[in-house]
Amino acid sequence: MFKTIRVEERITAANDKEAEALRQEWKKQEILSINLMSSPGSGKTTLLKRTVQELHGRCRIGVLEADIDSDVDAKAIDALGARTIQLHTDGMCHVDADMMRRGVSAMGVEGLDIVFLENVGNLICPAEFDTGCGKSVMILSVPEGDDKPLKYPLMFQTSDVVLLSKIDALGYFDFSVEKCAARIRLLNPHCLILPLSAKTGEGFSAWIEWLEKAYREVLHD
Amino acid sequence: MFKTIRVEERITAANDKEAEALRQEWKKQEILSINLMSSPGSGKTTLLKRTVQELHGRCRIGVLEADIDSDVDAKAIDALGARTIQLHTDGMCHVDADMMRRGVSAMGVEGLDIVFLENVGNLICPAEFDTGCGKSVMILSVPEGDDKPLKYPLMFQTSDVVLLSKIDALGYFDFSVEKCAARIRLLNPHCLILPLSAKTGEGFSAWIEWLEKAYREVLHD
Repeated sequence: MFKTIRVEERITAANDKEAEALRQEWKKQEILSINLMSSPGSGKTTLLKRTVQELHGRCRIGVLEADIDSDVDAKAIDALGARTIQLHTDGMCHVDADMMRRGVSAMGVEGLDIVFLENVGNLICPAEFDTGCGKSVMILSVPEGDDKPLKYPLMFQTSDVVLLSKIDALGYFDFSVEKCAARIRLLNPHCLILPLSAKTGEGFSAWIEWLEKAYREVLHD
Repeated sequence: MFKTIRVEERITAANDKEAEALRQEWKKQEILSINLMSSPGSGKTTLLKRTVQELHGRCRIGVLEADIDSDVDAKAIDALGARTIQLHTDGMCHVDADMMRRGVSAMGVEGLDIVFLENVGNLICPAEFDTGCGKSVMILSVPEGDDKPLKYPLMFQTSDVVLLSKIDALGYFDFSVEKCAARIRLLNPHCLILPLSAKTGEGFSAWIEWLEKAYREVLHD
């Protein structure tokens, strides 16, 4: 039998206060802010593009595109008419509250209803740093495997919504939505789990409904 | 047009010296050490399992399984008879040279020919910390998309080999092996690019051949 050893190091996160201040500002401005997290290649940008298109004419949307050093996603989102800014993290694996504040201030959020932060593609570090967003949403795509809640528990624990994406590929991969959902609920009983496909649109209306409901809650809070 | 701002922070990596010392020790012990990196769900464990099986009887293999806090992969590898140790990083997004040294010392490497470090699932942080391994290999799986070299350049720049995995799913995803390979070569002209499937075995013999060649180089260096 193999041994297990702990090789931890202390992660300092002094940004909780800054995040809380930012969250209060979003509230006052009546803006729904969403921290969107996932691993690379899970389809964050495709999901955001379809979301922007479906909400067109109903909500004014801003997108902060965090990338370690490329602009490809910001270009795609910008082309759809959402207000967009690119945050270059220069190698950093996550966005913290201070980076978020600088992004928000450079983009300008006046007149917006919903602001998405497309966080850096990573299932670990983004879950450890509070960005100050009102809601946290993560994407887990079918090709990544239904065991991921076992391996990246913090990300699942800190999310209000888990989108199980690329369900159009369910026939091709050995992925059980039921098993995966049960694993997520063990970690986070209050989490909303929405299976969907940004490619075919299956399940997408439940996501749009959740966004509209969450936005109404910001208005009436 | 959208704006771009830089939100970088300084990442301190004081472990280069320790990594180099570790690399010299591997050399003296005539062990090929491989840092295996990828995003979550790209199939690191499945690839390692098949690799251990194919090398059975030809090489003695050790595996350091780094996980933020689960044991699922170590159990799977241990069952195949490789010497295995689980490294719990307790939330840390990468393995550095010090963690590697502690893992190696706890597992014991006497009598081994090849030691794999299955690094934490993450395309960013593991590329920034030298683990002291002799070779770096990364996996990019077809469902993640052929644009990933544009988004995570450092990982591709620091790898000796890029395994384009899950090529059995090529018919299902919009992924061009040629485009992806061209993007990788722009970043890293000397990198070996091997398309393969750990599920069907397609392309796997080239990977096994590379491992055997790299091991012979360690012996004759």
